[in-house]
Amino acid sequence: MSSTLSCSASDLIPLLSGGANATAAAAAAEFICGRFETISGKFTDASYAIDNTYLLFSAYLVFAMQLGFAMLCAGSVRAKNTMNIMLTNVIDAAAGGLFYYLFGFAFAFGSPSNGFIGKHFFAMSGFPKASFDYPYFLYQWTFAIAAAGITSGSIAERTQFVAYLIYSSFLTGLVYPIVSHWFWSSDGWASPARADNLLFQSGVIDFAGSGVVHMVGGIAGLWGALIEGPRIGRFENRGKPVTLRGHSATLVVLGTFLLWFGWYGFNPGSFAIINKSYGTSPGSSFYGQWSAVGRTAVTTTLAGCTAALTTLFGKRLIDGYWNVTDVCNGLLGGFAAITGGCSVVEPWAAVICGFVAAWVLMGFNKLADKLRYDDPLEAAQLHGGCGAWGIIFTGLFADKTYVSEVFGGDPNRPYGLLMGGGWRLLAAHVVQIVVITGWVSVTMGTLFFVLHKLELLRIPSEDEVAGMDPTSHGGLAYMYTEEEIRNGIMVREMGRENENV
Amino acid sequence: MSSTLSCSASDLIPLLSGGANATAAAAAAEFICGRFETISGKFTDASYAIDNTYLLFSAYLVFAMQLGFAMLCAGSVRAKNTMNIMLTNVIDAAAGGLFYYLFGFAFAFGSPSNGFIGKHFFAMSGFPKASFDYPYFLYQWTFAIAAAGITSGSIAERTQFVAYLIYSSFLTGLVYPIVSHWFWSSDGWASPARADNLLFQSGVIDFAGSGVVHMVGGIAGLWGALIEGPRIGRFENRGKPVTLRGHSATLVVLGTFLLWFGWYGFNPGSFAIINKSYGTSPGSSFYGQWSAVGRTAVTTTLAGCTAALTTLFGKRLIDGYWNVTDVCNGLLGGFAAITGGCSVVEPWAAVICGFVAAWVLMGFNKLADKLRYDDPLEAAQLHGGCGAWGIIFTGLFADKTYVSEVFGGDPNRPYGLLMGGGWRLLAAHVVQIVVITGWVSVTMGTLFFVLHKLELLRIPSEDEVAGMDPTSHGGLAYMYTEEEIRNGIMVREMGRENENV
Amino acid sequence: MSSTLSCSASDLIPLLSGGANATAAAAAAEFICGRFETISGKFTDASYAIDNTYLLFSAYLVFAMQLGFAMLCAGSVRAKNTMNIMLTNVIDAAAGGLFYYLFGFAFAFGSPSNGFIGKHFFAMSGFPKASFDYPYFLYQWTFAIAAAGITSGSIAERTQFVAYLIYSSFLTGLVYPIVSHWFWSSDGWASPARADNLLFQSGVIDFAGSGVVHMVGGIAGLWGALIEGPRIGRFENRGKPVTLRGHSATLVVLGTFLLWFGWYGFNPGSFAIINKSYGTSPGSSFYGQWSAVGRTAVTTTLAGCTAALTTLFGKRLIDGYWNVTDVCNGLLGGFAAITGGCSVVEPWAAVICGFVAAWVLMGFNKLADKLRYDDPLEAAQLHGGCGAWGIIFTGLFADKTYVSEVFGGDPNRPYGLLMGGGWRLLAAHVVQIVVITGWVSVTMGTLFFVLHKLELLRIPSEDEVAGMDPTSHGGLAYMYTEEEIRNGIMVREMGRENENV
Repeated sequence: MSSTLSCSASDLIPLLSGGANATAAAAAAEFICGRFETISGKFTDASYAIDNTYLLFSAYLVFAMQLGFAMLCAGSVRAKNTMNIMLTNVIDAAAGGLFYYLFGFAFAFGSPSNGFIGKHFFAMSGFPKASFDYPYFLYQWTFAIAAAGITSGSIAERTQFVAYLIYSSFLTGLVYPIVSHWFWSSDGWASPARADNLLFQSGVIDFAGSGVVHMVGGIAGLWGALIEGPRIGRFENRGKPVTLRGHSATLVVLGTFLLWFGWYGFNPGSFAIINKSYGTSPGSSFYGQWSAVGRTAVTTTLAGCTAALTTLFGKRLIDGYWNVTDVCNGLLGGFAAITGGCSVVEPWAAVICGFVAAWVLMGFNKLADKLRYDDPLEAAQLHGGCGAWGIIFTGLFADKTYVSEVFGGDPNRPYGLLMGGGWRLLAAHVVQIVVITGWVSVTMGTLFFVLHKLELLRIPSEDEVAGMDPTSHGGLAYMYTEEEIRNGIMVREMGRENENV
Repeated sequence: MSSTLSCSASDLIPLLSGGANATAAAAAAEFICGRFETISGKFTDASYAIDNTYLLFSAYLVFAMQLGFAMLCAGSVRAKNTMNIMLTNVIDAAAGGLFYYLFGFAFAFGSPSNGFIGKHFFAMSGFPKASFDYPYFLYQWTFAIAAAGITSGSIAERTQFVAYLIYSSFLTGLVYPIVSHWFWSSDGWASPARADNLLFQSGVIDFAGSGVVHMVGGIAGLWGALIEGPRIGRFENRGKPVTLRGHSATLVVLGTFLLWFGWYGFNPGSFAIINKSYGTSPGSSFYGQWSAVGRTAVTTTLAGCTAALTTLFGKRLIDGYWNVTDVCNGLLGGFAAITGGCSVVEPWAAVICGFVAAWVLMGFNKLADKLRYDDPLEAAQLHGGCGAWGIIFTGLFADKTYVSEVFGGDPNRPYGLLMGGGWRLLAAHVVQIVVITGWVSVTMGTLFFVLHKLELLRIPSEDEVAGMDPTSHGGLAYMYTEEEIRNGIMVREMGRENENV
Repeated sequence: MSSTLSCSASDLIPLLSGGANATAAAAAAEFICGRFETISGKFTDASYAIDNTYLLFSAYLVFAMQLGFAMLCAGSVRAKNTMNIMLTNVIDAAAGGLFYYLFGFAFAFGSPSNGFIGKHFFAMSGFPKASFDYPYFLYQWTFAIAAAGITSGSIAERTQFVAYLIYSSFLTGLVYPIVSHWFWSSDGWASPARADNLLFQSGVIDFAGSGVVHMVGGIAGLWGALIEGPRIGRFENRGKPVTLRGHSATLVVLGTFLLWFGWYGFNPGSFAIINKSYGTSPGSSFYGQWSAVGRTAVTTTLAGCTAALTTLFGKRLIDGYWNVTDVCNGLLGGFAAITGGCSVVEPWAAVICGFVAAWVLMGFNKLADKLRYDDPLEAAQLHGGCGAWGIIFTGLFADKTYVSEVFGGDPNRPYGLLMGGGWRLLAAHVVQIVVITGWVSVTMGTLFFVLHKLELLRIPSEDEVAGMDPTSHGGLAYMYTEEEIRNGIMVREMGRENENV
């Protein structure tokens, strides 16, 4: 049939005026139907263009989180380890790019699979397909590199760079892809979108990865930091913790805001598709996936905001001052928690999510100090702890309608316990926490232990005291000459620095 | 009718071949019309997807301005107050998120209203509606938090954090939403889109908020800074002004560029909808709202660029050197000015707008020095002064065609005085300046005065000298250890810092 | 015909039931065809909305590269020249905005032309047209300012600001636009999209500008740096090179990540249009320009990642440590190289591209040291050297199918030599390298030489030693008071900086 929408009346008239003439009627029908087919095809094309524009720009935002991590980490460590931690962030993205291309994506999304690990699309062979186009690969890569970034925070300021290269590759290339296969690939064993045999008839709803990304990165970091032990000077002889302040709160705030910015790609972008109506027929409702994407941005925002405010007042009560770096961490804890359920909860529930997340983080930090656990970025507490809370939260507050709209399937599928949806979703989520903890502990814990035994994990004490930048990275990140100091940095008296007006 | 586009000739043939058979004709008509209805619905869906993609990503860009503010402010204050000012920026966003969710949006857009204040959608109840979907809420929230950020610059380095918490909530939750209701809600008393009873038969054209956002923030800051008085050391005994240089021009440039980046969400994003043709029938013209969005990006760019260049040469003449931080402020002054009229003026007019804005800012800064007015960020001069100029500018240069395309209504509605459009638009804009100045003065001026009387506004002198970070925020933002200094920061001689090659 | 999609069966029935009645048939045909025409128009409108949304947000990303340049440059110079280099970046954008508006765009895209230089659309007169709408102007402006930014890196730390103003205007307003006309305007003499008379029956495929942007900026910088000579202290008496370390690796990493982020606008955005199917009829394939845009993002990513990893290990072997700033430069070299062919090569080829680019950069840096060539940002080596490699690479690896899909024309047009596409594309690319080198050398080389002769190019030695910021820009970029130092920056002992817990 003709692939055009042009419609000339002079062509159509004789066809329609044929009356009971069967030949003319056939021609008329073909004429009209051909145009409807063209229209249908053009809608398909436009949808691809719209959805991929949305997905690509979301991927770019998630990528910006890597910059956010780099700045947050840099500001949170001492100046003498800045080059080191920033290099890990750059290499997370770079090595992650190659590994995820070569096999990470294949392990994660190589359907059909056995439910445990994917096995197609190595080195993007077979790309593009109707199910997976290039923008989808790019989007998933930006997620993979985020997980490794979390872990590097836990073991900052004391880990050999070679150890970093090894665990980062292992995490991005194998451990994380397998977890994402379980929960996000349509044939993963715990996927909420499996055709049948759903875990507890529900599957796990971990929309953007409170578990798949944050808990994985956090638990990996927990084992690394536990096996390495705390930094020199972090605990006094009797165990009294000593804060080893990062060298720049400005970088911490910069990094936090960039992570916030990027989270709008992480959470609202995880729909992958935006041109989808929730109405009963096309055009029947202003309400569709575009609304759900916006709602996800709103719940994400509210959880983070509430966690930040809770931390502000909580820390004021505990410490006696208004602490911006702790507020930043609280904010990020709220985001890590809402990430799993962001698409299926009401805005008011997101406020609860953020409020609890702030206390979870403050509690785990207290506990860490008690147990002499040292995590320079609070990464295990924040991503592991708040991530786990987010998984539970979703099991409690997932809304029936939203679950059905976003994940489809049986309209009576389980949803949040406190919303009247029964225990099954929550049970599946408890399984998720257990399984992720187990899997990451077995794989990453073992790896860190082996590296430790091979003396490849921790740097020598003298290097740690001197700093990793001078000993392994060619010098410090900052450099001011005497000339510059004489010319004005740090020498004039207050209030008279410069009299130019 | 059927909600499908599938069209099988074998189904349609008997219907069309019925000739004068009324039943067959009815079936044929229903068949064909059902498909047109489906098509119409699919266009509606696609439009929602396109427009909301555009609106959401614009909102993300505007959000990035909050990071821009944080960095600009941090760089513009002394190192000892960096933690303080950054915390205000984080809390602007976080508290703004909660307050705008709870009641700010309701006050601003809760139509139907009495024209003064909205009264629906508290805590997003009733969301989503055909008129307001989640992305629209997110977009408006990013604007609300911008206003509070402006004010915090004016009163930086000397304001108690508790005072900040109070005025910020009041401004974001009440003062700003009410102003935005007047000019931006379709039933605001000065809206250019009211169904009838337009102010001076015109209404106020403040497209993205030279008045609603910038003047509101600037006038609020003016009162705060006036009531607090200047920082210690800012004026010598005989009144000679002393520049208290900010601690990092790098952060100023970083913040300025981020604000520029975000302004592409602020101005071009304010159309809210991009899939709208200006042609007489669909497809009749390549020219549509997509062109207007692009034109708005161009006018915004040109105004900022011209203001930056004007400031570069102006300050070179006045001060004798090429000053990057003043160029940054000039640039931002150009943006604040073009914000109101960006969508309705020609590119050449934007050049005029920016040129004048630079001189407005330099003039107000001169005046501030004369009057011993101290505003660490020049926020009142920049956002208040250039914002007011932008309101006048729009009254002078708004183009007839563009006003009609963007705001609709009577095709003979008033437009810019110098474009031949009469005095009525300019008169409405003078009213806007007077009303915003009055309203913000009465509300925020009173609030600052009460806080002052309760001794909640300004910090003690000894804290101001020592810095707010050590006294209220747990320590300074930066920290370098002796170890690090010994290892290389700031000790080697120039030209021989490092001999690695 | 009616511009509506409404279809009432009661209207259509009598028309279809007319049987052989010619009048009724005519009315029915007009009824139906009118609706198809409306549909066709609405698709056109939606395409404009989709494509311009994609193009505008891509332009915003490319603009963010200007911030990336500013931070990368600032971090790569010594603290005493920070204000200077950042001002050049701000002014690149600002002056570039005005000049590109007034005549740059006209020279670049003012078709119909003589093939050498465009001559329409000065000051955007005639805008918008079907061929060029405002978003396209904005996008092209962001490219123009990138070229000047590259050059300012080569001559950093020793060039008079007035010289900078002159060469930057000349480059952005004239030299660059003319080059972009040759390769990117549809009637440029070397365009791959000319209607006829293609250079070597192929034209040059420089998709996003390895040559047009990077080589132009790099070669201009090469001449500037050659004519000025190296910075004081850069080479010892016997020629031994001395690294003059930049003052902040943190800013280098920040700038690099921002450039990476912006490159997703630069390369994938260069399609300008995303809603275009590559199928034989609408909807016949999931594969279209949206896939190609995504593939371009993937090839860009892989080239940069591979170059970064190659540099990491390469420099480790050469220098003995893990160097983050060199890894950043390697990454950017990979991007500069893939920019020309990003849309027409396979992902695996991008890996090769990045691998070679890293060695090209390391090699040119070695050579520069040997020749006592001093380029503070390695800009000539990176953008000139890797840009040239990228041009060759495209001539070797361009894929037949992709060339045809992206550039159209004869399906048997030349493609990459190693892909079996013959010598003609490679020959055209060699011509491109020669012509760009010649043109930029003649124009910019002459300009720098004249400025040198007029003693307008290099600053006096005493200013260079003291730094440009104190001597020309009103003071240093950083300022810490004694007060602040006493309060904690840089005075406490390691491990005990702060005991708040």
